[in-house]
Amino acid sequence: MRKTIVGVMGPGTPKEQKVLDDAYKLGKLIAQKGGVLLTGGTAEGVMEEANKGSSENNGPTLGIIRNSKTKISEFVDIPVITDVNEARNNINVLSSDFVIACGTGLGTMSEIALALKNNKKVLLLNQVEESKSFLKIFNDSNLFFVETPEEAVDFIESKKDE
Amino acid sequence: MRKTIVGVMGPGTPKEQKVLDDAYKLGKLIAQKGGVLLTGGTAEGVMEEANKGSSENNGPTLGIIRNSKTKISEFVDIPVITDVNEARNNINVLSSDFVIACGTGLGTMSEIALALKNNKKVLLLNQVEESKSFLKIFNDSNLFFVETPEEAVDFIESKKDE
Amino acid sequence: MRKTIVGVMGPGTPKEQKVLDDAYKLGKLIAQKGGVLLTGGTAEGVMEEANKGSSENNGPTLGIIRNSKTKISEFVDIPVITDVNEARNNINVLSSDFVIACGTGLGTMSEIALALKNNKKVLLLNQVEESKSFLKIFNDSNLFFVETPEEAVDFIESKKDE
Amino acid sequence: MRKTIVGVMGPGTPKEQKVLDDAYKLGKLIAQKGGVLLTGGTAEGVMEEANKGSSENNGPTLGIIRNSKTKISEFVDIPVITDVNEARNNINVLSSDFVIACGTGLGTMSEIALALKNNKKVLLLNQVEESKSFLKIFNDSNLFFVETPEEAVDFIESKKDE
Repeated sequence: MRKTIVGVMGPGTPKEQKVLDDAYKLGKLIAQKGGVLLTGGTAEGVMEEANKGSSENNGPTLGIIRNSKTKISEFVDIPVITDVNEARNNINVLSSDFVIACGTGLGTMSEIALALKNNKKVLLLNQVEESKSFLKIFNDSNLFFVETPEEAVDFIESKKDE
Repeated sequence: MRKTIVGVMGPGTPKEQKVLDDAYKLGKLIAQKGGVLLTGGTAEGVMEEANKGSSENNGPTLGIIRNSKTKISEFVDIPVITDVNEARNNINVLSSDFVIACGTGLGTMSEIALALKNNKKVLLLNQVEESKSFLKIFNDSNLFFVETPEEAVDFIESKKDE
Repeated sequence: MRKTIVGVMGPGTPKEQKVLDDAYKLGKLIAQKGGVLLTGGTAEGVMEEANKGSSENNGPTLGIIRNSKTKISEFVDIPVITDVNEARNNINVLSSDFVIACGTGLGTMSEIALALKNNKKVLLLNQVEESKSFLKIFNDSNLFFVETPEEAVDFIESKKDE
Repeated sequence: MRKTIVGVMGPGTPKEQKVLDDAYKLGKLIAQKGGVLLTGGTAEGVMEEANKGSSENNGPTLGIIRNSKTKISEFVDIPVITDVNEARNNINVLSSDFVIACGTGLGTMSEIALALKNNKKVLLLNQVEESKSFLKIFNDSNLFFVETPEEAVDFIESKKDE
């Protein structure tokens, strides 16, 4: 049986510390549940914190890297160098069994949009109201609004064998 | 001097006829101004209508095609077969001097987001309120809200030599 | 009816002047026959000369550009910015109705290989013996050995309506 | 310290059983040395055998998958779904610390060519004479000819900390 791959997407420079703290917790909880963490792998923001959280709890981390000049997080075990730049966002979501969007941003929104287009289950955490209101208009049954990292990971745990 | 390339992005199956009518007008006006129309090139929705509008007014049309099985619009003069699927959205915006988003959708939002991340000027037409409210939070000086196809093309005409 | 798109692939820094001269002639002849020239679009080597040959004979030129920092040939009318780096080789061959390889090189060999894998007709010009011997082992009916630019373009002319 | 990632490339339907046997041995030896095996991940040919060899020796296996319809080898632990089709060959070589080409083929040659263009060390195993003769003309110091899987893996072991 393959391990569940959980993609954590989020801004490289979020304004709120809570977004970073939650990214760390997501990485930690995914590791504790035995999942593989997938991120864009850059050494900044949500990606860095999620990888740190997983790595410090002995979880495997997979980074889908923008290009060969990207500064890769030291907490990424397996970097995949795509060299396709922003187009790697599509690889991020296609390779994730579940996608968690932590925080609001343009790159993050492109990943949410691509994930839904590809019929992936997407969990939204720490989204501003405008982001939630926009996404609600699509009435997509693969979109889930969660309040905490624990709720996100419990949800995935409950759905992963479906 | 290269011709200005104007990307017109929008949903394949929009709910409102006005979105399709405006797409046709955009194609027509871009052709009349001497621009090259760029779209995703599929034979449906906003892409099809924009290509039809350009083609019926002797404008050149460039289609950035999802994959080798895509049904390509008969109004596309030059199809570029990417075979990178959704990742071709990034090629769409990078290859456009200006991006016009006509109508609201997930794929369209991913293109708006990628365009802004790549510092492209983006004109928004026929967006629902929730889409506008979301995009306004980024306060991006490359984002412009327009009301008609004429206003969009006049705006581009005024900026293209900057 | 769409115009025939002819891809001309070849090294950026070939050793022999004949390779460059033939690239120029290919561009010229493709333009004279009413075809669209497709190249990787960089301002060097075979790409530059083919674009120059087409452009000076009023032919349309399409460049499939490696990334947003590439120095683009001034003779490219329509640059498509892929930002997928070497992976754009696959877009080159998929978007060509016919592929002409002019000169020997590693990048060129990757394009010949991808073209054959995608069932494209490939014409070989100015290949060293070792390149020919290697390609012959695949006994591929889409592979054609030609001696001059004229022979290449005449061949395409004879096959384009099949 | 990250584990060394070794890419094993080769045909999906090689003519000789020895190519498949050597692919299995490569997977096994890479696992025993503590490396991560990277392949294109399809359930056939060299990819399947290498993954089987690694997996049966408790090695981690990473598959860079062509598209979402590819039949993935059951021995791949972490599949990365690129959906960029043949363009994933470039991701294969960029993500490998070392590339081993096992067997002769068009796709394999495109990977050898891309690897050398990206300054990766490439080890050639089970290549026909015509393939070797062609590659020798580039006189590339990153190209190594080996005779057995053991020699390939020992070579990597000796170079990996450089």
